[in-house]
Amino acid sequence: AASRLRLSGLCFLIQILNILLFAVFVRYSPESSPGQCPPQLNCSQRNQDSGFQQPRFQDVHIRVLLSFGLLVAFLGRYGPGSAAISILIIAFAIQWAVLIQGFFYFFRNGKIYTGAQSMVSADFCTAAVLISTGAVLGRVNPVQMLLLALLEVILCTLNEYILLSLMGVSDSGRSLTVHTFGAYFGLMVSRVLYQPHKDKRKREGRQDVRHQMDVFAVVGTIYLWIFWPSFTSATTVHDNAENWAVLNTYFSLVASTVATFILSPVLYEESIPRMVQIQDATLAGLAVMGMAGEMLVTPFGALIAGFLAGLISPLGFRFFTPVLHSRLKIQDPCGVHNIHGLPGILGALLGTLLTLLATADTYGDRLELVFPLLAQGSRTVTDQAFIQLSALPLTLLLATLGGCLTGAVLKTKALRCPPDAQYLEDTVLWEVKLGNC
Amino acid sequence: AASRLRLSGLCFLIQILNILLFAVFVRYSPESSPGQCPPQLNCSQRNQDSGFQQPRFQDVHIRVLLSFGLLVAFLGRYGPGSAAISILIIAFAIQWAVLIQGFFYFFRNGKIYTGAQSMVSADFCTAAVLISTGAVLGRVNPVQMLLLALLEVILCTLNEYILLSLMGVSDSGRSLTVHTFGAYFGLMVSRVLYQPHKDKRKREGRQDVRHQMDVFAVVGTIYLWIFWPSFTSATTVHDNAENWAVLNTYFSLVASTVATFILSPVLYEESIPRMVQIQDATLAGLAVMGMAGEMLVTPFGALIAGFLAGLISPLGFRFFTPVLHSRLKIQDPCGVHNIHGLPGILGALLGTLLTLLATADTYGDRLELVFPLLAQGSRTVTDQAFIQLSALPLTLLLATLGGCLTGAVLKTKALRCPPDAQYLEDTVLWEVKLGNC
Amino acid sequence: AASRLRLSGLCFLIQILNILLFAVFVRYSPESSPGQCPPQLNCSQRNQDSGFQQPRFQDVHIRVLLSFGLLVAFLGRYGPGSAAISILIIAFAIQWAVLIQGFFYFFRNGKIYTGAQSMVSADFCTAAVLISTGAVLGRVNPVQMLLLALLEVILCTLNEYILLSLMGVSDSGRSLTVHTFGAYFGLMVSRVLYQPHKDKRKREGRQDVRHQMDVFAVVGTIYLWIFWPSFTSATTVHDNAENWAVLNTYFSLVASTVATFILSPVLYEESIPRMVQIQDATLAGLAVMGMAGEMLVTPFGALIAGFLAGLISPLGFRFFTPVLHSRLKIQDPCGVHNIHGLPGILGALLGTLLTLLATADTYGDRLELVFPLLAQGSRTVTDQAFIQLSALPLTLLLATLGGCLTGAVLKTKALRCPPDAQYLEDTVLWEVKLGNC
Repeated sequence: AASRLRLSGLCFLIQILNILLFAVFVRYSPESSPGQCPPQLNCSQRNQDSGFQQPRFQDVHIRVLLSFGLLVAFLGRYGPGSAAISILIIAFAIQWAVLIQGFFYFFRNGKIYTGAQSMVSADFCTAAVLISTGAVLGRVNPVQMLLLALLEVILCTLNEYILLSLMGVSDSGRSLTVHTFGAYFGLMVSRVLYQPHKDKRKREGRQDVRHQMDVFAVVGTIYLWIFWPSFTSATTVHDNAENWAVLNTYFSLVASTVATFILSPVLYEESIPRMVQIQDATLAGLAVMGMAGEMLVTPFGALIAGFLAGLISPLGFRFFTPVLHSRLKIQDPCGVHNIHGLPGILGALLGTLLTLLATADTYGDRLELVFPLLAQGSRTVTDQAFIQLSALPLTLLLATLGGCLTGAVLKTKALRCPPDAQYLEDTVLWEVKLGNC
Repeated sequence: AASRLRLSGLCFLIQILNILLFAVFVRYSPESSPGQCPPQLNCSQRNQDSGFQQPRFQDVHIRVLLSFGLLVAFLGRYGPGSAAISILIIAFAIQWAVLIQGFFYFFRNGKIYTGAQSMVSADFCTAAVLISTGAVLGRVNPVQMLLLALLEVILCTLNEYILLSLMGVSDSGRSLTVHTFGAYFGLMVSRVLYQPHKDKRKREGRQDVRHQMDVFAVVGTIYLWIFWPSFTSATTVHDNAENWAVLNTYFSLVASTVATFILSPVLYEESIPRMVQIQDATLAGLAVMGMAGEMLVTPFGALIAGFLAGLISPLGFRFFTPVLHSRLKIQDPCGVHNIHGLPGILGALLGTLLTLLATADTYGDRLELVFPLLAQGSRTVTDQAFIQLSALPLTLLLATLGGCLTGAVLKTKALRCPPDAQYLEDTVLWEVKLGNC
Repeated sequence: AASRLRLSGLCFLIQILNILLFAVFVRYSPESSPGQCPPQLNCSQRNQDSGFQQPRFQDVHIRVLLSFGLLVAFLGRYGPGSAAISILIIAFAIQWAVLIQGFFYFFRNGKIYTGAQSMVSADFCTAAVLISTGAVLGRVNPVQMLLLALLEVILCTLNEYILLSLMGVSDSGRSLTVHTFGAYFGLMVSRVLYQPHKDKRKREGRQDVRHQMDVFAVVGTIYLWIFWPSFTSATTVHDNAENWAVLNTYFSLVASTVATFILSPVLYEESIPRMVQIQDATLAGLAVMGMAGEMLVTPFGALIAGFLAGLISPLGFRFFTPVLHSRLKIQDPCGVHNIHGLPGILGALLGTLLTLLATADTYGDRLELVFPLLAQGSRTVTDQAFIQLSALPLTLLLATLGGCLTGAVLKTKALRCPPDAQYLEDTVLWEVKLGNC
């Protein structure tokens, strides 16, 4: 009963806090956009021709809930038991991210001027939080989960601010700031909260749960195929550039899906991959296109990148996840390292390579959109490539430090419930399926 | 067998009737819109700049099926058993509403000129019918359901015509004409059809059904989050105004979701709300923004309104629904009173309050869109607020009278099947779960 | 083990082949569209006013995955067991169709210039493949399925090229080139692969599977209602023409849904149709509007056409499918003949009739969009109607010949596994429900 009321009370506190902070700070932009557009959305090009205003905004309707793609994806592993908490996390993180990102980007004259664009930014942040929760699902209680969201939103925004605004990194689909940051942040929290005695219950006998999870995996995969490619290109504005980002993402998707059909029969006993594995491949193929999606100028590059991501992900599940667990004591029940971490790093390296190859000839008008600083002549190609490359270790460092810090906070006695009661409840709550899920 | 063929015959009759009426009256508009735009869609602004034409229409593609959001929402309670009948109701009500609304709004020279806009109008009406059916699900047979749809479409259109066209009420998201009207109409029908001896079967043992309903609740909640905010702003036209209606609806959503996490552990034994409860909160948060969505000029207003709606809905389930049942003899298995009725009234009151506060300063260009009569100077703020307020009792009156009338028609002996056979069939058909569902 | 590795190896081969062919041939269009627009997309009108460019492309995001509508539709019959293979087929067929269609339409100077439009074309082709697989599901192994996709993409593109580019047939919603071609191609393959000793296992006892299939049928029906009408109008460009195609498709949908409620109680014991039957009616109502969707100038025409399609489909299931099986030895477990074949033919005949009635008076500006050759004066109405009519037997001929050829290839010994092992595996893979499903 006490634990129930604790969650209830915390929700009440944070919601009242949010309402008060919104009342003091947040206002709608008096007119749509011009002026208060944040640098990471480089909307300066957008305002040049007002014809694009309306259709762009319409996209936002759908994209603003891209994090539900992730939610649906996790449902393939956890079923509706975890959906309630995930929705709470989303509902809180969106409000909190509007506030925190507002202070970084949209703060002027003591007020945060918000609009559709800050909703999109907030949602990117929420997606990173959802990725991180995937690494600790089943081992933290809802109160700890809310605190994790509270801290990660701040750190994720900080990382994004450093990379996109200060360093001028091109990462429109957020390979680094969402996928890589979210994955390694979550893994670090998982490391700090490591519990050696947690037994891995096998629940293969519960056919109905497995069936149900397959239903969610099918729905999640279809959702990702339909909506995610436009997410990758959410912040690429020019119709031409967007065009290629979406198409590259599709090509990456199909190649990574075929790759799963190649590796799964070799690695496992089954002749056909299970739906969750196909969903993992889909996510990996999407994550790898985050940075490179708008940089690739030929479709076969996307096919190759997606193919590699689709191969890395099952290999990681088979060989890397056990090593992470036994050697590094990092439990990764959802495999976020294989689905978001490794493909995110691969995507960042690919982006660096493509930056080196960028010339005004191959890019044409798109150069100004993809690399505005290059087009203005204030940077050379080598400088930009070096900055793209150095963003990777910086993100890893910030994610690791942030994860350690957050883990340490979550580990405090005040937050841990008496283990016997709490764990029992957790079991009911989360319906965890560890191992290869 | 007789009851089977009766439904079949009725469907045949109404479809032939619809085809004949369409053949005699309905034609496509010769050109797109100018001229035959109905007043309640205030499309006059839209035609000023033709660039908006195409993207607006595209919205309609998706919004035209907003009633499916409600359908999916009910699936969370009833499962696929009721989906078939709901789809029949939708298929009939859309045709019927195009006809009836056509006679009210689009009738010229003996013909109804139809187009995408009349489809949207028809769909608003269908949504009201679906809300009403939620109050009588499990106690009426399909034939009665079709008659209910037939009558409610007429009365709902009448109410909408009086409010929007004659009185000039601003209700773009249809807090009054869809949510409030549909809820109280259905509750009145439920009152008239009250059957005291109907036992409440508890089916908690059937785990698979409960699991399945949770799947639908998850899918329904996600559907509502993604598609409904654009529904609330379906008839707000200017990009700036739409912007705020959508954002307000999102903020209301997240606040009402958090509110459920606050109240559910206090009211019930469970530490985490079930998915149907979260879905209810989502719907309540959406209903409350129907009228006020485009009037709110600050995000924290939406947070507060959503928060209140999210608190009212579970309180209503806990304390109001039993009173409705025991004192007023109104059975409300789906809780439409808590999900649509109370939040709709709250939304209407909030809209009245905001109308009082409306000034040209705070609204700017949006004043003409939200309150065209105010902007033209033909009404004062107090007049408009009084009219907004008086629309609420009028809607309640019309809904109650219409519900009584419809209930009386449905109660006629000719429509009731022999109870033993029929109820048995009902049980199979509807898989009713009464009480708190 | 050998069969597992054979699929894995084949996937590897075709993916490497695709990557190589893409590397050699496929490039992105240097600018968006002008010049390399294929004749069957008649985008010449589109480029006249550049304002349409951006919203059109946005449509493509969603439509590009229309084939998932079909996938979801099949899930209603087969459940997640078949989803994995279907996704493999989609992932392969999209790449392959971009290549093959590129050689037909987009090939210039030794390169295929690809873009969003070629993705849409590729997806139409994938939809035809998915329809065909519906006729052989449960009797072919994944390797055979991949070969079927490989061959059908070529033949389907050939048929489309002859009809749309050479003959100038108007078939914007692809009644002939997707629905009719896909259905009869699949049925012919099914005929050639006929296995008389295959027993029909009844699995009515497995309630959980039936429940699950109903879930998919509900989700699939909703998906079709929401997304498919815009598919039918995917290649109609002018806002006015698109308008009518979408509205006609909606009207056809609702009428065919009501028709199912009329016939099902008469033909079967159940008082309410099952969700799969409603889904079938939905698909039939969509298929019949493929060609006629943009030609109908009055809504009641769409109501009548949809009503007829909704009557034909259950009648076909009841009377035609058994005859097909016993006399013609064609097994049709998913009823593609009733859902896609017959309504496709009906749609083609209706299109011919409407072409005869086409006059500049009734069509106005739309004449140039629907029948460009008529509007230019290079053809008379009778000529166009004759060509529309002659496209039907040509499509049937090509589909039948192609199906025979493909069936013969799939029947070769090398592709058939030792029956005992393979069939057992198939059973597990496909969860076939034969008969009326």
